Amino acid sequence: MPTAAAVADFRTYPLISELADARVLDDQIRVQWADGRLSPFHHQWLRDNCPCAECVYSVTREQVLEIVDVDAHLSAVSACLDDGFLQVEWSGGHLSRYAPGWLRAHAYDDQSRAERRAAKPRSELWDQRFTLPVFDYAAVMEDPKVLLQWLLALRDSGLTQIRGVPTEPGSLARVAQRIAFIRESNFGVLFNVQSKADADSNAYTAFNLPLHSDLPTRELQPGLQFLHCLVNDATGGESIFVDGFAIAAALRTEDPEAFRALCEIPVEFRNKDRHSDYRRLAPIIALDALGDVAEIRMANFLRGPFEAPVEQMPLLYRAYRRFIAMTREARFRVVQRLNPGELWCFDNRRTLHARNAFDPASGARHFQGCYVDRDELLSRILVLQR
Amino acid sequence: MPTAAAVADFRTYPLISELADARVLDDQIRVQWADGRLSPFHHQWLRDNCPCAECVYSVTREQVLEIVDVDAHLSAVSACLDDGFLQVEWSGGHLSRYAPGWLRAHAYDDQSRAERRAAKPRSELWDQRFTLPVFDYAAVMEDPKVLLQWLLALRDSGLTQIRGVPTEPGSLARVAQRIAFIRESNFGVLFNVQSKADADSNAYTAFNLPLHSDLPTRELQPGLQFLHCLVNDATGGESIFVDGFAIAAALRTEDPEAFRALCEIPVEFRNKDRHSDYRRLAPIIALDALGDVAEIRMANFLRGPFEAPVEQMPLLYRAYRRFIAMTREARFRVVQRLNPGELWCFDNRRTLHARNAFDPASGARHFQGCYVDRDELLSRILVLQR
Repeated sequence: MPTAAAVADFRTYPLISELADARVLDDQIRVQWADGRLSPFHHQWLRDNCPCAECVYSVTREQVLEIVDVDAHLSAVSACLDDGFLQVEWSGGHLSRYAPGWLRAHAYDDQSRAERRAAKPRSELWDQRFTLPVFDYAAVMEDPKVLLQWLLALRDSGLTQIRGVPTEPGSLARVAQRIAFIRESNFGVLFNVQSKADADSNAYTAFNLPLHSDLPTRELQPGLQFLHCLVNDATGGESIFVDGFAIAAALRTEDPEAFRALCEIPVEFRNKDRHSDYRRLAPIIALDALGDVAEIRMANFLRGPFEAPVEQMPLLYRAYRRFIAMTREARFRVVQRLNPGELWCFDNRRTLHARNAFDPASGARHFQGCYVDRDELLSRILVLQR
Repeated sequence: MPTAAAVADFRTYPLISELADARVLDDQIRVQWADGRLSPFHHQWLRDNCPCAECVYSVTREQVLEIVDVDAHLSAVSACLDDGFLQVEWSGGHLSRYAPGWLRAHAYDDQSRAERRAAKPRSELWDQRFTLPVFDYAAVMEDPKVLLQWLLALRDSGLTQIRGVPTEPGSLARVAQRIAFIRESNFGVLFNVQSKADADSNAYTAFNLPLHSDLPTRELQPGLQFLHCLVNDATGGESIFVDGFAIAAALRTEDPEAFRALCEIPVEFRNKDRHSDYRRLAPIIALDALGDVAEIRMANFLRGPFEAPVEQMPLLYRAYRRFIAMTREARFRVVQRLNPGELWCFDNRRTLHARNAFDPASGARHFQGCYVDRDELLSRILVLQR
């Protein structure tokens, strides 16, 4: 059984199919697999990905070779199967060996690429009937399996709760750091959500806050938001969530013209106080390269005046009103009061959150919050899955 | 002279032209300015931007009104000019007043939008003849005018140097914090660039490092990178910079097909060690909504195997080789050794940086680095410009 000794990665690549044949063509080597698949690999691609100790520094597992230092018309002198590996001798004499598991995992024939695309995790949309994934603080802190379950729920559903969290201020940091370092903002590393007389954001008042994402005024909205309840003796202040991806999907079906307007017409979000002045122009709905909804950016109270061509303005208002109206529909909303020792953790770029108004005279209310970016969530998942 | 008392902003809006006339049409108010310009404002837009104390919370200067709570068919009962302001009475009775300076600054007729677009700051491209903007540490730390000059040079040229910085480890933090908090990464808040036996990145070896951006493996590459020299007694290790935007502009002219390939075919960057596994699929050249080059993402040693349709692979290799070859051309390169007490600060998403190999046996070499995001740079500039 060949092993992937020189692969520049911490992953292992299971053997899906043996190599059956390798044929040298003009600018590529055409590999045939035992299961019949044909995978072309261009000479440049193969030479670029040579895993030998000369081309990849074994300590960092990072490439030292730069392909531009190889002849653009480099060709294979020979290609053969050796102990299950593909072995190639290049004009100029360099020798490369490729493990079949690694090669199959990186094959770029249409079928292999389609398989990998189909295997990618997909968002699971939800509505008011959502079964909230709840996790236990002690288990998350101690058991890597539970930690992974929590992170997968965050990635795929975008809304989770953890219970049994200590209510000492600052306890939230330990939970967030189970993933990675905390993303700081102008509101601090941990921020306190309390009613303040000199509020620099409506979040720090007792008002109701409409459904929104946090920091839409930044180029990259924070990936994960944590909200940890320390004290909640005030009347009101229930948490409300909607799945922004589910709303976008419904809008796409029910009013495709409005959907397109929110994807295509950028809107400016602004957040300013005496020490900062953030602005970001971006569409409310962002699509990925495949046309899937990748992000929602929304906070009415941080939005600047629309600036669009005159003829687009009526459509933009129609679309914006429709989206906001949908966030208020009961079919999409999950409403729940957070109790001391509980925390919400949700995908801030997907799951919009809101708060009902509360009565600060009726009792104390103190939440702490923080952010962790999506890069860190995905990295942690990959490390836990190794 | 009307003042902008109720404007939901910390900015002031100079009076460019008086209001001359306001006429109520079916779904809009058409304003005529004293200088002849005509600006239509839709009823929805005007009502949405009402600056009164009922619609905007005066403490946070954030909107409380949500436009969806206003009739979609709202119309103006009357519009008149009052003490220089536009005053509108709405069906339903609400009264709105708009300062003429604010209104002109947000007018969305074609001419007003084109004027604002033309006034936006533009990148100043550079090559080997670049006159490096150099600033003095004490002046940057004490004089807000020099601070602003430095930040504008960073925004527009993307490469600056500061001299006279203390060489005690950690001094860099004070410079970065003149802008804002530091962006942490898995390499820490401040990272030490020294040759290490157990390097987790080629940056921490004595190898030459080809021209690259830092953290291309993250969704948002850090906006600004700082590199501060504490000790530099080793032979070699010169810093090299190229303006990635200038190279992209040259490529666009010299080989438009290669340019398009680097804009359109995404590439995966990977960075992994025992504790992290970051991956990001993105094009090497990113364009903004207007088709201008907005970002370069490049680090050969962090790049994963290309995954593109078979028929695109030869073009992708040709384009990639061409871009790398251009980064090596003398016409683009600024080469300079950094001395103790000096620091580089550059736009990490534009200015690619490299390091010649150094000889760790010839003497000590110790740099410290950190990141600050572009949001913070732009916010700081706006606050200093108030």
